[in-house]
Amino acid sequence: MTHNQKSADVSFESLLKIFTIPEGPDSTLTQIEAELSHNLNQFLREHIVAEEKPLTEIERDFSDPAIPEQPQFVSEHTDHLMNTLVAHSVHTSAPSFIGHMTSALPYFLMPLSKIMIALNQNLVKIETSKAFTPLERQVLGMLHRLIYRQHDGFYQQWMHSASHSLGAFCSGGTIANITALWVARNNTLKATSDFPGIEQAGIGQALAYYGYKGLAILVSERGHYSLKKAADVLGIGQQGLVSIATDEHNRIVIDDLQQKIAELKQQGIKPFAVVGVAGTTETGNIDPLGDIADICHHEQCHFHVDAAWGGATLLSDKYRHLLSGIELADSVTIDAHKQLYIPMGAGMVLFKDPDAMKAVEHHAQYILRHGSKDLGSHTLEGSRSGIAMLLYSSMHIISRPGYGMLIDQGIEKARYFAELIQESTDFELVSEPELCLLTYRYVPENIAATMHKATKEQCLTLNNALNELTQFIQKTQRETGRSFVSRTQLNPARWYHHPTVVFRVVLANPLTSREILQAILQQQREIARLAPQLMANISRIAYSIENSTPMP
Amino acid sequence: MTHNQKSADVSFESLLKIFTIPEGPDSTLTQIEAELSHNLNQFLREHIVAEEKPLTEIERDFSDPAIPEQPQFVSEHTDHLMNTLVAHSVHTSAPSFIGHMTSALPYFLMPLSKIMIALNQNLVKIETSKAFTPLERQVLGMLHRLIYRQHDGFYQQWMHSASHSLGAFCSGGTIANITALWVARNNTLKATSDFPGIEQAGIGQALAYYGYKGLAILVSERGHYSLKKAADVLGIGQQGLVSIATDEHNRIVIDDLQQKIAELKQQGIKPFAVVGVAGTTETGNIDPLGDIADICHHEQCHFHVDAAWGGATLLSDKYRHLLSGIELADSVTIDAHKQLYIPMGAGMVLFKDPDAMKAVEHHAQYILRHGSKDLGSHTLEGSRSGIAMLLYSSMHIISRPGYGMLIDQGIEKARYFAELIQESTDFELVSEPELCLLTYRYVPENIAATMHKATKEQCLTLNNALNELTQFIQKTQRETGRSFVSRTQLNPARWYHHPTVVFRVVLANPLTSREILQAILQQQREIARLAPQLMANISRIAYSIENSTPMP
Repeated sequence: MTHNQKSADVSFESLLKIFTIPEGPDSTLTQIEAELSHNLNQFLREHIVAEEKPLTEIERDFSDPAIPEQPQFVSEHTDHLMNTLVAHSVHTSAPSFIGHMTSALPYFLMPLSKIMIALNQNLVKIETSKAFTPLERQVLGMLHRLIYRQHDGFYQQWMHSASHSLGAFCSGGTIANITALWVARNNTLKATSDFPGIEQAGIGQALAYYGYKGLAILVSERGHYSLKKAADVLGIGQQGLVSIATDEHNRIVIDDLQQKIAELKQQGIKPFAVVGVAGTTETGNIDPLGDIADICHHEQCHFHVDAAWGGATLLSDKYRHLLSGIELADSVTIDAHKQLYIPMGAGMVLFKDPDAMKAVEHHAQYILRHGSKDLGSHTLEGSRSGIAMLLYSSMHIISRPGYGMLIDQGIEKARYFAELIQESTDFELVSEPELCLLTYRYVPENIAATMHKATKEQCLTLNNALNELTQFIQKTQRETGRSFVSRTQLNPARWYHHPTVVFRVVLANPLTSREILQAILQQQREIARLAPQLMANISRIAYSIENSTPMP
Repeated sequence: MTHNQKSADVSFESLLKIFTIPEGPDSTLTQIEAELSHNLNQFLREHIVAEEKPLTEIERDFSDPAIPEQPQFVSEHTDHLMNTLVAHSVHTSAPSFIGHMTSALPYFLMPLSKIMIALNQNLVKIETSKAFTPLERQVLGMLHRLIYRQHDGFYQQWMHSASHSLGAFCSGGTIANITALWVARNNTLKATSDFPGIEQAGIGQALAYYGYKGLAILVSERGHYSLKKAADVLGIGQQGLVSIATDEHNRIVIDDLQQKIAELKQQGIKPFAVVGVAGTTETGNIDPLGDIADICHHEQCHFHVDAAWGGATLLSDKYRHLLSGIELADSVTIDAHKQLYIPMGAGMVLFKDPDAMKAVEHHAQYILRHGSKDLGSHTLEGSRSGIAMLLYSSMHIISRPGYGMLIDQGIEKARYFAELIQESTDFELVSEPELCLLTYRYVPENIAATMHKATKEQCLTLNNALNELTQFIQKTQRETGRSFVSRTQLNPARWYHHPTVVFRVVLANPLTSREILQAILQQQREIARLAPQLMANISRIAYSIENSTPMP
């Protein structure tokens, strides 16, 4: 459709052309590609975060539910995309975009991604992936070794074994967590001589056979929301996802974990998995993994570690120890599209025991036949892309020490930012950085002192007013598009566990400079001044607390 | 890491460089990209299917479980990839690669994929996707309209509604099917005034509350293997996936469906979903969707259509009618990476009722807040790429009539190939093409006549020998790397339902010519001659049948 037609007619010849390799460096497509690369680079250089066009206006450009009846020229369509889509997308790789775990990508991945797209391998089966299959098995081996540090003989034996998998690549941490808990569930309620196993009989019969009233997964109250989906989808129910208290550092309270396990057992409910968090999504903290492992070992319970974000810390000689105990986990989730700097869609789950995934093994007649090395026989997903290739390349081009350095700089930058906040009289550090993530909020000068004097009830009133201000600042900063921090809600002990809205920053982008961090605080101060009513309300509440007069 | 270092030391400056936009057309990366494009195009032009290197040898190149301690230059690594990976990958877009549903891609997607990779949007939330979110909602609207043909007002009301989703993008058909059945399960066992719903209470309690002994999903024996995974993962158990007989055209037998539903109900088991198949994976046939819809309506049962592969037929004016009744489905799976010619990783599930997905809605504090338009509140997956963009572009550049033409040519080519097989005295057409998929096998001349005379027992013996030959031909053809057909096992009524190994071809690539199809048959004849023992065995069995002598 790239050539000479403006009419509604589509010819079969023009269709054949779009499937034919463009010839030489002067082809229309090559020219479009060069221009596109130039324009994209310009966008990435000029735009910070996103343009200030309201979503409702953007939606107008994407409101026609009819599939076009007229073909568009590639060049014309590319222009359309640049104007309607690219110009109003989010510049996730901007150094001032520090709000989420989606960060910058190494530029060498742009050309290398072409290999993935152009070859369009399907990793579900060798017949459509060939060398990509051993490559993916090697990458899984690398991650397994990073976590479990088994000897070389172990990997020689299992990495390429047709009937084993050391783990699975998947679209992201959610599918990885679901896969881990699926395996755990099936191994707990497995087949015996007189029971066909939960995978055949379902939960109802499995509970009856094993004499349990229900199943439970335990995780700290900081566990990722994907675990709620996992409990739902796996048929356990969200009530079976038991929340454990955290301490002032957002880490699971071991005593509470033990008590909850005892309570569940007394109720006839089987606690079949405990999830340790290695890098909580909202505060970046790490559970005491060794202690959880001990309990799981004692209780014969599957120990899963959700290290979707924090797992990459294992690449740092300096901070690897923070995840100590992870090697005792039965399974671990790691997302390559977070701190391994790979494009979106690269999650992984690793299993300590090469036999673990047999609990979810499946076959078919046309693929995944017994004895084949098809990766699809152990994955929740079916067809999958060859994105493992990009991680393989990054491991080689950046190397382990390079990744370590990226991790180190993030953590150290977060410490710097925490100091900057603590030195400021108008900001409050809410959670300290253990990895490269921290939370804080703007608290107008002199208000902090008042908060410490306030009663529990007064504190709630003041906190609610501050929450409104934090929300306003975060939204306004996002909308002005110069920089971006995210926000979440915590319940800090220091503020009587009142709901407290905070800014959340993740400092993974190596180009985020100290100057940018200083500027972000300055912008937030300035935005606060744009809300005189919210500010006045806070002052009024503080005044009434200071003077202990009843509030109107 | 692209510049001047050969030592093990990685400097932070070199790390910064890899995250910095490469300047101008003379940068190292631009040069590498140009060379890579050239080499990839050369590979795609020169290689047919794959090189003849045994998998065990390829595995040797991917056997080191250690993450490299030394960084590699991008150029050096690219060469390494070309030699070890690309040279031994599968040329899925070759016109003679007709074995699977992974086919050619339009070349305009190569430059456009850059936008997806470089912007690295995360569709789970607006904050990391902005305009990509309305775009994805529009694409879902387009597919919804293609299936359900609602009026414009419907799409105006629901397409961009914050609290609704017309469906979900996901990594592929498996997740799409799981999502549909998850929604169906949760809507069947939903919350009431005195029950919190299955999503909270789990299957055990839900069955007890509703008074069911179990749950069942019904699908024809040709249903995709992902449904077994779905039944397992959703806690229903694979025994709850009830298989319904098919007729001689591989379509579900409606009487058997009705009977099985009645039996289940008598056993106290709730048949909560029936899956109609619109394009079976192994034979490409379409169930009588309207009839299934009637039964589901009568039984108040969720009607899901797995149109992962066949759904694209709706784009053809000429063949759209083959899927008649699909508009009555409660949900439909369509894979864009199959007959919509999009790179791997683009599945979709659509729901007729904009409220259906409320059954799986979820929220979190830091994203997916109530009232947000974050797509992640209705998806099984969390972080997701902006691949919807590529489908949006293809819809615009190819247009609806263009897609229709691609579908038409596939179906008509399959009919041609079927005729070619039927005209040959040494090939047997096992399943006729309804869409662009058919199965057949090589049956040496004169053997066909013998088979028709054989008793059931004799036929089994002969069939087993033919199965060995079919396997040999398929494997050898794959290994010689000139062309590729896949194989599966069917149980045709005509051969007493004996297991029958067949070649399976999918004719989606518009560049697959009639000459190529003729050549593929000729190659298969020639390969058969390379197995004189198998051929002699078949002759011997045929001889003993013809002469009715007992076989040794």
